[in-house]
Amino acid sequence: MSSFVKNAWYVAAWSGEIGRYPMARTILGENLVFWRRQDGSPAALIDRCPHKLAPLSAGSLVGDDLQCGYHGMTFNSHGQCVRIPGQIAIPPSACARPFPLLERFGAVWVWMGEPALADASQIVEVRRYGEPGWGLVDGQYLHFDCNYLNITDNLVDPAHTTYVHRNTIGNAAAEDVSVKVEQGENHVLAYRWVNDSEPVPLVKAMGNFAGQVDRWQYYYLHLPSVSCVDFGSIAANREHSEQEMDAGLRSFSYNFLTPETETTTHYFWLHLRNYQPDSTQASAQVTQLMTDTFLEDAAILALVQREQDRTGIREFVRLGIDNAPARIRRLIARRQEAEQQMAQEAVSTAPPSSSQALTA
Amino acid sequence: MSSFVKNAWYVAAWSGEIGRYPMARTILGENLVFWRRQDGSPAALIDRCPHKLAPLSAGSLVGDDLQCGYHGMTFNSHGQCVRIPGQIAIPPSACARPFPLLERFGAVWVWMGEPALADASQIVEVRRYGEPGWGLVDGQYLHFDCNYLNITDNLVDPAHTTYVHRNTIGNAAAEDVSVKVEQGENHVLAYRWVNDSEPVPLVKAMGNFAGQVDRWQYYYLHLPSVSCVDFGSIAANREHSEQEMDAGLRSFSYNFLTPETETTTHYFWLHLRNYQPDSTQASAQVTQLMTDTFLEDAAILALVQREQDRTGIREFVRLGIDNAPARIRRLIARRQEAEQQMAQEAVSTAPPSSSQALTA
Amino acid sequence: MSSFVKNAWYVAAWSGEIGRYPMARTILGENLVFWRRQDGSPAALIDRCPHKLAPLSAGSLVGDDLQCGYHGMTFNSHGQCVRIPGQIAIPPSACARPFPLLERFGAVWVWMGEPALADASQIVEVRRYGEPGWGLVDGQYLHFDCNYLNITDNLVDPAHTTYVHRNTIGNAAAEDVSVKVEQGENHVLAYRWVNDSEPVPLVKAMGNFAGQVDRWQYYYLHLPSVSCVDFGSIAANREHSEQEMDAGLRSFSYNFLTPETETTTHYFWLHLRNYQPDSTQASAQVTQLMTDTFLEDAAILALVQREQDRTGIREFVRLGIDNAPARIRRLIARRQEAEQQMAQEAVSTAPPSSSQALTA
Repeated sequence: MSSFVKNAWYVAAWSGEIGRYPMARTILGENLVFWRRQDGSPAALIDRCPHKLAPLSAGSLVGDDLQCGYHGMTFNSHGQCVRIPGQIAIPPSACARPFPLLERFGAVWVWMGEPALADASQIVEVRRYGEPGWGLVDGQYLHFDCNYLNITDNLVDPAHTTYVHRNTIGNAAAEDVSVKVEQGENHVLAYRWVNDSEPVPLVKAMGNFAGQVDRWQYYYLHLPSVSCVDFGSIAANREHSEQEMDAGLRSFSYNFLTPETETTTHYFWLHLRNYQPDSTQASAQVTQLMTDTFLEDAAILALVQREQDRTGIREFVRLGIDNAPARIRRLIARRQEAEQQMAQEAVSTAPPSSSQALTA
Repeated sequence: MSSFVKNAWYVAAWSGEIGRYPMARTILGENLVFWRRQDGSPAALIDRCPHKLAPLSAGSLVGDDLQCGYHGMTFNSHGQCVRIPGQIAIPPSACARPFPLLERFGAVWVWMGEPALADASQIVEVRRYGEPGWGLVDGQYLHFDCNYLNITDNLVDPAHTTYVHRNTIGNAAAEDVSVKVEQGENHVLAYRWVNDSEPVPLVKAMGNFAGQVDRWQYYYLHLPSVSCVDFGSIAANREHSEQEMDAGLRSFSYNFLTPETETTTHYFWLHLRNYQPDSTQASAQVTQLMTDTFLEDAAILALVQREQDRTGIREFVRLGIDNAPARIRRLIARRQEAEQQMAQEAVSTAPPSSSQALTA
Repeated sequence: MSSFVKNAWYVAAWSGEIGRYPMARTILGENLVFWRRQDGSPAALIDRCPHKLAPLSAGSLVGDDLQCGYHGMTFNSHGQCVRIPGQIAIPPSACARPFPLLERFGAVWVWMGEPALADASQIVEVRRYGEPGWGLVDGQYLHFDCNYLNITDNLVDPAHTTYVHRNTIGNAAAEDVSVKVEQGENHVLAYRWVNDSEPVPLVKAMGNFAGQVDRWQYYYLHLPSVSCVDFGSIAANREHSEQEMDAGLRSFSYNFLTPETETTTHYFWLHLRNYQPDSTQASAQVTQLMTDTFLEDAAILALVQREQDRTGIREFVRLGIDNAPARIRRLIARRQEAEQQMAQEAVSTAPPSSSQALTA
């Protein structure tokens, strides 16, 4: 069974990846082709000509439209065939499925489910994005050889950092401070405060703290697969308010997971910080540290996926640290059930030959 | 279900490929081994020793026979075991299936179906082959990563040339001259005449025409998978007869498709021309142009095949240009049905232990 | 169906391969992890953490125990979880299957079946091992791309040497001296004496024989998959006794086959000789000759396996030379039946929740 949630916005690409040329990418097991129209707006179709199934990404742009490289059938961004060389009549079945797109936070987002449900307000908010005083690292991409839920497990699980990230961000000190878990309709949050503690080296160097600090980690997972890690330090014994936290040393690490197939995932990430916001050196350090850290995750998760695939087993033993990951999996399962029910109802109520041609 | 027609002659190899050594090649999904006897005649067996299934192609020739490289079992060209080292009695089951072969037009042809039906007269005629005044390029081979019927589609379809071959033989000019289709029991023909037109650059350079020309393209597909493209130009307003066409600038391009597997095809080709027949430079130009052109076909067809395999879909929309390709597929389907019916009848009428050992 | 015999000792590794680090190896289709405890004794567990299925071989040693590299779950050599970071209670299901091990003849042997049946006395005896006057080559490993029974076939089959080993140990002379076959409960033996014959070149060079020799080859296959080839020469017309044979020129070639998967096999080998026992040059020559010879076997058997896999056929024709191989396969099949019956009885008589945690 598929582990995908279809009715959701996924990052399809960084804005700079899509231009005046066809670009192929597999998302939720579907092959898509992306391009920009002459006014700069992005477009996406299923990457498959309805004639002989040639990938449209092997074709070329003609004005706003995409022309197949095999026999020249040409499609507009709504997926309608607008030209068949050597033939005047265009059969109504000559269309390619379009996908709703939105461009926000420097990325192009795609809606893989029912187009009528595509609602811009459902795109997750990237906090502090574009605000003064905040340094940005974005445009980052990694490819993970595992199902996306193995990654969401990790992203609400501080426990693995001691072992997987011993050479990067992990340390054993925080191991025994317990993690609290909260849950909303659309997110799971795991968090902890480590109060009155020695600042970690990076914080000491960047933060200019005179004494002890209160340190926080908030791991948000916005369903289905956007992770936000809010972490930082403030001088000990201050109020734990948004205002104080912004005045301390603070970072937001966003990971946008887009399932490619059941066993591979596109991993887009960006990072916001309120220290040295304009320093290219600080940005380079963040990029290096995060990349190294995520590659450690990618390595262990590829091994986990391989063994899960080989054995068909997912999990033998449930531990205490699996609280937040298990909540995510339950919420995801609920969304999938709702989508399946909706799909069955659509089938039973649809008129016999209703067209699925929907506009982007 | 298999897409193969078994009762047909296929080019197995160019004559020069087969010699006094075992040579392995997969044809219609069967592994075969080829060699030449001491009198130069070619032989072919299934490439599988009946003892432990070692490929006979890993063995060596002993006189006219082929000796397995594992335990030395030796087979003659009829597939009969003539020696088992260390054992006098040769069990009747110790045989390897032989395949009828013929050598013609510089190639070795193999019959993959019922040997009793192998009829030399069914080999297609290569027109003008060996005639004076005709230059020959032969011995050419390409490997296509697609089912052979995706190639036969292309070979009776002038419409794709404008898009797939825009860097080689394609041009948009002829796009609107309609193609006529005719059909016989054993072939499909798509053709058109573009009359009273400017000679194309190659024809201008080679043909020495004073004015306008009538240009023709005849795309023959001889079932199951031999393509002949007859194309050329004559001075405008002459009779469209064989004699006049031979007196003009004329080429025959033969493509012999031999299915390797359901998703891969051996592509043998040769080319005959009546201009500069002895020029090695003209031959080199033909070789380069045809190779470049066919590699463009191979590239798009590999993409088409991959998507057909991935989705299980063959075709969504039928276009006007699919007339000739669809006829071929219908004729092929009819031959397959006939073969299946024949196979079923053979099973129901065969004596219980009838041997299948048939001579080449 | 599996071709494996589980209740048997298999060479898992040469002693030097296992140390103070986790080492992964697949045996009988199971992934195992090996290490040494602080006292030097070897340990083996299934290579799979019961939490998320991370391979334990991606973890690290902590004292005598093995710590998972994902969340730090720690297992002792009995497979019991002794620590879960951040959690006090250890669920009883948090264990990893251990495997009985023994170290003998410079190798670590593993028992893949029912631990209660693991009996050290069932390890095969390596004759002359460690005795004075015998030179040893050991630590040798090759990887074969075939099922282990295709190798045992070869190891009791002198007939293939003439063809497969024509460039190494094969010669046509002995082809017609017949091979006798004997069978015990736990072994099959094929052997022959070639009496009163010219010494082969190696024997001439090493053996200092004045005249003709009696030459012997004894091919033992100790079930399921340890091969011992005893071969040598004595002066003609002496008694064929152990004592005389030891006084002649004699070698023992041991091959320990450990199935990796159904289509791949670990091939460990060692060699004992009573000539020039301390010569490093003689050892190097033996190593080179045996390696070259076994690689010839590996090449033909990989081709056989590929064709067996492709067709699903194992054998078409049974020959006289298949006597000993067929006996081995029958004895193996009998052991497998006994194991299956035992497994079914265990299921029907086991208490509902009996633990399978057994000590190494």
